Amino acid sequence: MRLARLARAAPLLVRTAATAATADPAAALKAGDALRSRRRRFTEDDVAAYAGVSGDRNPVHLDDAFARGAGGFQRGRVVHGMLVASLFPALIASHFPGAVYASQSLKFAAPVYVGDEVVAQVQALQIKAASGRHIVKFATKCFTDDDQTLAIDGEAMAFLPTLQLSTEAME
Amino acid sequence: MRLARLARAAPLLVRTAATAATADPAAALKAGDALRSRRRRFTEDDVAAYAGVSGDRNPVHLDDAFARGAGGFQRGRVVHGMLVASLFPALIASHFPGAVYASQSLKFAAPVYVGDEVVAQVQALQIKAASGRHIVKFATKCFTDDDQTLAIDGEAMAFLPTLQLSTEAME
Repeated sequence: MRLARLARAAPLLVRTAATAATADPAAALKAGDALRSRRRRFTEDDVAAYAGVSGDRNPVHLDDAFARGAGGFQRGRVVHGMLVASLFPALIASHFPGAVYASQSLKFAAPVYVGDEVVAQVQALQIKAASGRHIVKFATKCFTDDDQTLAIDGEAMAFLPTLQLSTEAME
Repeated sequence: MRLARLARAAPLLVRTAATAATADPAAALKAGDALRSRRRRFTEDDVAAYAGVSGDRNPVHLDDAFARGAGGFQRGRVVHGMLVASLFPALIASHFPGAVYASQSLKFAAPVYVGDEVVAQVQALQIKAASGRHIVKFATKCFTDDDQTLAIDGEAMAFLPTLQLSTEAME
């Protein structure tokens, strides 16, 4: 596991107008705060590796001609939706190592093609204390097309060991 | 992509009492039908490969001592929930190549530890025609502990190009 102490943790925390006035912007997660991932492209190799480990060899992910024809995907192969959705727990865990996922809903609203640039965003909707931990409901969204297209929409519930954002963001 | 013509497609279709009397048990998916995956163990290598491709390096998946301590997982490292959940689209696509996922809800009810044997099951709850395809709502469940423990519960909606079960099940 590569760990890097990064200055980027703070800028990736986006505060809404309602919460922007707090004294220490990066200290602890508050309802309304949004965390955004770095831009990411899932390559052909990523999709092949994921097909291997998941066993999901649906030809819409692996065969351009099939994806365009039977699949109806104009630009060819699409990234597995559940691989794109893995950005949500990855993003949460990078800021809150030890986070434990309780639930996730996912609506696959638009295809993510192999090579497309995506950005994931999780926004804290509700925070409750729960036996020494915190249970947080997040709105989880993934965008393509320079943030113009919502590819995945949903919500997640996760138990966080602390609301303090980790200063050791994981690469 | 390895394709194998397998006799096992039929036995993995489980009919409920209400639908068991149909003439051709493996021909076409009907509401009530359940499909079960082979038993699968996610190994340490699988979890490492998934951590690499997803970027989710949460120590609860990679570090036994952390998982037992801060994570609260008695038996150590747990498999990423979204990796276990990948069994659902993999199972659907293995029987219906070209299936396109529309949505998935997931409740992570019990941990799946690295090396645990799991079985996924998807049961057709509702089938509707949709512009040349079929939109099917599935109950999606994943079991561990010799089917005694429900690890993941949820529902998925998928567009299927046909209701005929593929005779070319993908390995």
